[in-house]
Amino acid sequence: MELNSRIIIHLMGLLLLCNGGFMLLAALVSGIYDDGATLDIAIAAVTTLFTGVTAMYFTRGHKKEVKRKEGYIIVTFGWIVMSLSGMLPYLFSGSIPTITNAFFETISGYTTTGASILDDIEALPEGILFWRSLTHWIGGMGIIVLAIAILPLLGIGGMQLFAAEAPGPSADKLHPRITDTAKRLWYIYVGYTLAETLLLKLAGMSFFDAINHSLATLSTGGFSTKNLSLAFWNDQPLIQYIVILFMFLAGTNFVLSYFAFKGKVQRVLKDEEFKYYGALIVFFTLIATLVIYFKAEVPVSEYHPKVLGTAESSFRHALFQVIAVITTTGFVSADFTSWTPFLTIFFFGLMFLGGSAGSTAGGIKVMRHVLIIKNGLLEFKRTLHPSAIIPVRYNNKTVKEHIVYNIIGFLILYMLLFIIGALVLGALGLDFVTAIGGAASSLGNVGPAFGSLNPLSNFNGLPDLGKWWCGFLMLAGRLELFTVLILLTPYFWKRT
Amino acid sequence: MELNSRIIIHLMGLLLLCNGGFMLLAALVSGIYDDGATLDIAIAAVTTLFTGVTAMYFTRGHKKEVKRKEGYIIVTFGWIVMSLSGMLPYLFSGSIPTITNAFFETISGYTTTGASILDDIEALPEGILFWRSLTHWIGGMGIIVLAIAILPLLGIGGMQLFAAEAPGPSADKLHPRITDTAKRLWYIYVGYTLAETLLLKLAGMSFFDAINHSLATLSTGGFSTKNLSLAFWNDQPLIQYIVILFMFLAGTNFVLSYFAFKGKVQRVLKDEEFKYYGALIVFFTLIATLVIYFKAEVPVSEYHPKVLGTAESSFRHALFQVIAVITTTGFVSADFTSWTPFLTIFFFGLMFLGGSAGSTAGGIKVMRHVLIIKNGLLEFKRTLHPSAIIPVRYNNKTVKEHIVYNIIGFLILYMLLFIIGALVLGALGLDFVTAIGGAASSLGNVGPAFGSLNPLSNFNGLPDLGKWWCGFLMLAGRLELFTVLILLTPYFWKRT
Repeated sequence: MELNSRIIIHLMGLLLLCNGGFMLLAALVSGIYDDGATLDIAIAAVTTLFTGVTAMYFTRGHKKEVKRKEGYIIVTFGWIVMSLSGMLPYLFSGSIPTITNAFFETISGYTTTGASILDDIEALPEGILFWRSLTHWIGGMGIIVLAIAILPLLGIGGMQLFAAEAPGPSADKLHPRITDTAKRLWYIYVGYTLAETLLLKLAGMSFFDAINHSLATLSTGGFSTKNLSLAFWNDQPLIQYIVILFMFLAGTNFVLSYFAFKGKVQRVLKDEEFKYYGALIVFFTLIATLVIYFKAEVPVSEYHPKVLGTAESSFRHALFQVIAVITTTGFVSADFTSWTPFLTIFFFGLMFLGGSAGSTAGGIKVMRHVLIIKNGLLEFKRTLHPSAIIPVRYNNKTVKEHIVYNIIGFLILYMLLFIIGALVLGALGLDFVTAIGGAASSLGNVGPAFGSLNPLSNFNGLPDLGKWWCGFLMLAGRLELFTVLILLTPYFWKRT
Repeated sequence: MELNSRIIIHLMGLLLLCNGGFMLLAALVSGIYDDGATLDIAIAAVTTLFTGVTAMYFTRGHKKEVKRKEGYIIVTFGWIVMSLSGMLPYLFSGSIPTITNAFFETISGYTTTGASILDDIEALPEGILFWRSLTHWIGGMGIIVLAIAILPLLGIGGMQLFAAEAPGPSADKLHPRITDTAKRLWYIYVGYTLAETLLLKLAGMSFFDAINHSLATLSTGGFSTKNLSLAFWNDQPLIQYIVILFMFLAGTNFVLSYFAFKGKVQRVLKDEEFKYYGALIVFFTLIATLVIYFKAEVPVSEYHPKVLGTAESSFRHALFQVIAVITTTGFVSADFTSWTPFLTIFFFGLMFLGGSAGSTAGGIKVMRHVLIIKNGLLEFKRTLHPSAIIPVRYNNKTVKEHIVYNIIGFLILYMLLFIIGALVLGALGLDFVTAIGGAASSLGNVGPAFGSLNPLSNFNGLPDLGKWWCGFLMLAGRLELFTVLILLTPYFWKRT
């Protein structure tokens, strides 16, 4: 098969065009706040727009059809092209002067990870801070299209399972599905963002902080405009509860939000993944609350004023951090690695959970865990009755065997990449806890990690190679592994 | 189905009878060394023998046939009954006065783990030390029968795969297979033990140390008669190389040793698992040697005199620890957690490898990893060609799909139990590294772990509940998970 490289380049051009447009928006914000970075961002925007237009011009008149193989390339290279252009505002404005750091911050943005190399976030111009939050939000838009419309067609990690659930036409070609389904869900995404902004503003945040945190919440990103992240508002519980609510919604399948708005609430409450997602959050929050309230000995510092002492604050921080980690947002209300040794392991484990499929959350996802555990329990039954055929059921339907194995393959690949990820970070000189924590957090697109990458710290202390490696893990994790790794296999490049 | 409880109890009686016989042997050793514990061990032996005879007497005339379900119970309860009786010599002699500690040491023995709660091993009477090594060796004998003859019939974790490879009749009843196949392999097991004893004696060890270390080597156990373990002989490289050789053999499928002795060397060299087992050891030793030689900064202490400095000693300690961890023996020539952060993660990863199937080694096993990785790589090919049927091949044969999924189910269950294992240890107050290291080491039957359970330390510092929990993990890991865990499912106890 000959790859249709013209359409690949054409679509990259289109992405650059969109990205350039978003940069113009950031330049506008920069101009409004008169932060001195307006011209730099504008130049970055023009450079991006010009490159995009050129690429599209030279590949006009391409064949419209996109095949499976080209799909993988478009998705993976799409994220890389976005990141390469997205770092220009940082570089041109001098906010992040080195390519390694700028690329890290950008790919951490587009993959909605939220790990940062910035030591002093608040020193940045408003336009740049807005651009930083915007990279999250753009990444989140991409993820919604990816999860709902593209991955199921590419046959990745069980995403076929809920393709059937998504609204819109179910044609086999990529094109009509994308436009139609994606649009409906984007409306919800935009709506939620505006709603959170409004509520945060009403609760006492400045408008600038409100819009930035909303962009970072709905994309389950985690970049903040404050060095203290959400701990900055530890004396304003209402603000934190609003963020909790929207993190929860961002980690929920957007298709369910769509049904809810259509009035089909039964449809939402019957959804198996949603039930487990909710139940797990309640269960883990309960455990964390009790441990924090009765056990945690936290030095009251600038970072967690009033964290402890009251039942309410124990509950709030437990809920906040459980949801922040499960949804892979990674906002920080307190340093969860300093509470108790148990809670450190607890949150490390939660890094492997992930939000719902069809949300903007990263990680393994609740749906996959549910299916794997169900299948694992049935394995006992199968061992006892070797000749019986015992299928897995999900949402009251029998799940095809190949989809179960597809999901299991995903989990194994995930764990393998986690182990290799940790080994490489270890080889670069990181200590045990930092290496495995950093790998788990990057792969799961969470953000804060453990050891010297704890929530109080950032990724700036990593050696350069470590930053590139974490960037790779973020990308692979964000694009459901197969999309990226399949490009590294000989099968892919073999002509058939 | 009604369980045939008479045969279960009868077989438990038989096991007690054997165990009592072995205790008499330990009493004999105790008498020879006149260590003051002879009478105590003899009383333990008589108690065990008497219980065994009584159980057998009251269940004489049972139906001979053993069904699948009874198989699981016999194996799991067999190990527990052995451990309960095996702790009597420790208790009666006062060498280990508490039940928690005595049970821990015994189950660590029979599961061939080698984790200890003894602070001063050398203070124990010779008879007790010999009994301690013997529990390993008895456990190893059990594992050989289990792996070669019983597990394949119980349909556990892909062990069917090499059932076809084992010598002897392949009848479907448990009985003829056990006696015939097991006998042939036990000859090899006994032969290797005697050979190692002789070689260690010739190399300069005392006869007592030689026999004890041989018992602990062939079973991939890891109990030593010295507080320093094998580091005691750091100035006698020959002794360490002999132990390395026999750890390697103990971690090799005993069926292959059988073929080698029959002169079928080609058969051995063609074996796929053996090739990977060998290649992985070479590969990991190479890495560890280079890192130790060029990077490790070890304080020269009592525990690792002359560890560093020369290429030979770097190579020897790398090879020793790589083989000791991969084969899950857990002998210690140096504290591998103190070399470099990278090597700590490296050895943590090796804990999940395991030796060959059909050896006495614990862990996941090389065969399973090979099949899972092969299947994982083919998953990419399948994603690209969704309609093609692409089977996994192993030893030049197509592997049946349900066996592949059986193995994958095993891996997932293993990782799940590891995570729960670590969480429970964390909840008991252990720090992050100690909790995950202790869980990995216990589940893999390795012995030494990380953090405060590092090779310089022991498990005595654990809270009582932690010791019981690690004992459970050892048992589950040793009996290939399903055998133990299936007893905890409702499916098992449902009448059909």
